Amino acid sequence: MTYKSDIEIAQAVAPSDIREIADSCGVETNELELYGYNKAKISLDIFKRLEHKTDGKLILVTAINPTPAGEGKSTVTIGLAQALNKIGKQAIVAMREPSLGPVMGMKGGAAGGGYAQVIPMEDLNLHFTGDMHAITTAHNSVSAFIDNHIFQGNELGIDHVTWKRVVDLNDRALRQAVVALSDHNGRHARNDGFDITVASEIMAIICLASDMTDLKTRLGRIIIGFDYQQKPVTVADLGIVGALAVILKDALKPNLIQTLEHTPALVHGGPFANIAHGCNSVIATRLGMKLADYTVTEAGFGADLGAEKFFDIKCRAAGLKPDAVVVVATIRALKMHGGVEKAELGNENVDALLAGIPNLEKHVENMQAFGVPYVIAINKFVADTDNEVAALLEWAKAKGHPIALTEVWEHGGAGGVELAEQVVELIAKTPSHFAPIYDADASIVDKLTTIAKTVYGADGVRLTKAVERQIAEYERLGFDRLPICMAKTQYSLSDNAKLLGRPQGFEIHIRELRISNGAGFIVALTGAVMTMPGLPKHPAMLDIDIDEDGVVKGLF
Amino acid sequence: MTYKSDIEIAQAVAPSDIREIADSCGVETNELELYGYNKAKISLDIFKRLEHKTDGKLILVTAINPTPAGEGKSTVTIGLAQALNKIGKQAIVAMREPSLGPVMGMKGGAAGGGYAQVIPMEDLNLHFTGDMHAITTAHNSVSAFIDNHIFQGNELGIDHVTWKRVVDLNDRALRQAVVALSDHNGRHARNDGFDITVASEIMAIICLASDMTDLKTRLGRIIIGFDYQQKPVTVADLGIVGALAVILKDALKPNLIQTLEHTPALVHGGPFANIAHGCNSVIATRLGMKLADYTVTEAGFGADLGAEKFFDIKCRAAGLKPDAVVVVATIRALKMHGGVEKAELGNENVDALLAGIPNLEKHVENMQAFGVPYVIAINKFVADTDNEVAALLEWAKAKGHPIALTEVWEHGGAGGVELAEQVVELIAKTPSHFAPIYDADASIVDKLTTIAKTVYGADGVRLTKAVERQIAEYERLGFDRLPICMAKTQYSLSDNAKLLGRPQGFEIHIRELRISNGAGFIVALTGAVMTMPGLPKHPAMLDIDIDEDGVVKGLF
Repeated sequence: MTYKSDIEIAQAVAPSDIREIADSCGVETNELELYGYNKAKISLDIFKRLEHKTDGKLILVTAINPTPAGEGKSTVTIGLAQALNKIGKQAIVAMREPSLGPVMGMKGGAAGGGYAQVIPMEDLNLHFTGDMHAITTAHNSVSAFIDNHIFQGNELGIDHVTWKRVVDLNDRALRQAVVALSDHNGRHARNDGFDITVASEIMAIICLASDMTDLKTRLGRIIIGFDYQQKPVTVADLGIVGALAVILKDALKPNLIQTLEHTPALVHGGPFANIAHGCNSVIATRLGMKLADYTVTEAGFGADLGAEKFFDIKCRAAGLKPDAVVVVATIRALKMHGGVEKAELGNENVDALLAGIPNLEKHVENMQAFGVPYVIAINKFVADTDNEVAALLEWAKAKGHPIALTEVWEHGGAGGVELAEQVVELIAKTPSHFAPIYDADASIVDKLTTIAKTVYGADGVRLTKAVERQIAEYERLGFDRLPICMAKTQYSLSDNAKLLGRPQGFEIHIRELRISNGAGFIVALTGAVMTMPGLPKHPAMLDIDIDEDGVVKGLF
Repeated sequence: MTYKSDIEIAQAVAPSDIREIADSCGVETNELELYGYNKAKISLDIFKRLEHKTDGKLILVTAINPTPAGEGKSTVTIGLAQALNKIGKQAIVAMREPSLGPVMGMKGGAAGGGYAQVIPMEDLNLHFTGDMHAITTAHNSVSAFIDNHIFQGNELGIDHVTWKRVVDLNDRALRQAVVALSDHNGRHARNDGFDITVASEIMAIICLASDMTDLKTRLGRIIIGFDYQQKPVTVADLGIVGALAVILKDALKPNLIQTLEHTPALVHGGPFANIAHGCNSVIATRLGMKLADYTVTEAGFGADLGAEKFFDIKCRAAGLKPDAVVVVATIRALKMHGGVEKAELGNENVDALLAGIPNLEKHVENMQAFGVPYVIAINKFVADTDNEVAALLEWAKAKGHPIALTEVWEHGGAGGVELAEQVVELIAKTPSHFAPIYDADASIVDKLTTIAKTVYGADGVRLTKAVERQIAEYERLGFDRLPICMAKTQYSLSDNAKLLGRPQGFEIHIRELRISNGAGFIVALTGAVMTMPGLPKHPAMLDIDIDEDGVVKGLF
């Protein structure tokens, strides 16, 4: 049996007119700003009209620690929404929009896969509605303004600039760059570097802002560097909040597209899951809850990073209360957590599966710690054997964990009916007692320790001297009452990517803190964090083409 | 009397639904790709449908050498099209789209002014339909690919890279940058720099390509540097033509908007007028001629640069035959060419006006040399005195030059009726004998000499030793049969910005040649050419804002 590629499947489906999709979820035509007939932005005025409407239920899809075997979290997110519609419920997807960098590089887009995709996938994976480009432009406008300010006399007395530039590409050569070489005999030359756009604090701000006023407040708070008195210099000090807000005015509006089964999908914002919180925008999630009875959303990486930040940063900031969590795993990935190499995944190995299950178990316990009802979703692959499936179900039954098998990649919504029914029943019967895992007003050390011990299962945290100095500095500046945004390897519950399964007896090493004052969190870096990916030996660009009829190939 | 600002005038007019505008010029709904209700892209399939339709007339609007007094070339372009419609003719505008850099910096947008503007001006001056962002992305994808290729082993043996990076901002600090510092211990570190996006060769290519196939051919021909044998390395050698074409697939389609009086306007492409040819896209101009009886277009800077390159590069490449030229001047600007300072322009000064007229006269003679019928358009200002107007009209009458006064800034199309009537009569009565001024197959020196002597009125050209070596090199590589793209100060007919009026007894100093092999021209640089503008002391960004109702202010 040969499978079609994702782009072939996507191109074979005729999308509904986006006005029909909008109508199906109660968005009025005058609230739509069309981008062609298959994409639209939604005016923020809609919130005024729907102010008194009761919010629908919010479902987070998260996963075990990712492995090279793949888990299919986006695919399950989309497939679950399709399945909910299939069983007669009104559901909507709220997910992130992809960066062009990985599309042209290696990872591919972020449109789901198989028969659980959002479309038009080419547009989504290319320029979409221009949000990434607007964020790039706003971000680099700040940089251009800063260097010009220094060039023109440096009235604000900027001593050093912490604000880097961005480009929405994987461009290794720009990680570090020396700029301002050509003027004033290079007197202002300085070290700089480019991050990928999705690592921009402005991306995180777009995703956390509640409206235009909040956007401007957050933009103004951004710290771009420090003056000669070592006082922070903000974007408000530069006087360009209004200009940035104008550049971002459309990027703030959520985008509406559809799944292959015409389920409405709000695809908006895509902050990096390491240097930022890795969730789609608060505005899109809130809008989903106003429009649908069930909003299915996701967060980057595994539950230790993605769900934790979704709960502790996004839900805290937006006052959201998630009603249920779906924890996605695959038998293949659990076997890798149990010690099997990727090449061996085709062979039945129940022992390895059982050895890998503790990774899933820890994430499930974490969901319990956050007080949110959960279901485990097993994304089924053809190679999974009956014995393996039986062993997994037996474990779940013994521990009393709700679990459902899904085949949404192969069958779309029809492959997720069992999961959808369990989720609906769970929400109906089990109230959520969601609460963040730490108090934002606690000390930085306390917050770090709570995350490390409770969520990662560590013995505690170890801070470098530099971090201790930074904590003292943040306390002096009054920046210590912010939530923590952990930047940790996604591959392990620990800060060592090699420790799979459920590691124990380890500490989390905090190497550096960074303040994202506009986004409203403190980034805690454990180990090196990549804010600008590189291209691989054979970039995807080499395989992308368009024919004379305008048909695109090679996007995935 | 107080005047409204351009943005106030523009915001006061309710645009027609772009589908109505499209319908008014024969674009079918299925050929439109809507970007909201006031902007659309037009599918290139339209050319197939209109293949056998007779082309309408093509009118170029150009000007005397620009001065700080302003001439209003874009305003006359838009106003003339409005006026043609006013007198019952079917007309369309074909003009360039602006770069964000100047919008955030100093120069402002490029939407015309007063009652002769295209709308929506905010969108046009911000992200519009994303063309600039697509070009930025395609350009920088080449850069990322090159540095990755070198990093991964440099199979092609790239010795030095001539391809720079771009950003669509005025960012002085990026003019020169050292990149690739962070990997392999900086072994691949190299000097690089950023141009503004409109200076990208890809922008010039978008504007000269006739269709997708031609776009790919031109992209493939781009020279990105030289290998160890000093042989050119092209984008085709890199193997990424298809990926770039996918990134650019929508940017290649012309954009349809409207004027304040609902005249259709194709606004597409905006190459720098120094390093490139400064005209809107061939595709948009050709489409205008298929859709309307009169297409009014413009070219950057004065007629010595803009019209010359429009004729010798764009019309030659596209096989276009312009039917008429409008040469725009103002009495204020002519007085500056006659030696008056800007502060003194309010005072009547007929002598200075007469002293400045030879600048206009030379440009008019040049239009005669190209064989294209012309009209002089005087953009009238309130401060122009009756004596000055009379002196100018008397000069025109004595020399037999057709001339018309226009007040399109203040009165829109109604202010351009006299001009429109003259243009229509001119085209009806006077056939165009257009031909380029030089043969592309002539030697580089011959081509340079012809432009310098015939168009600028110079005694000849003087080449540096470096240029002589480059010419020998281009002849060796077979690149010498391309048209020349002159990069010269726009303020003077000579290469010295201070020589106003009609200078004589000068030579043109050719300092450097650059090959734009994809665009298909050789750039000849006279003096320093700025490919990345800087921000002024008080950037426009400081005055741009958006209120809670989404109303933008400070764009101009």
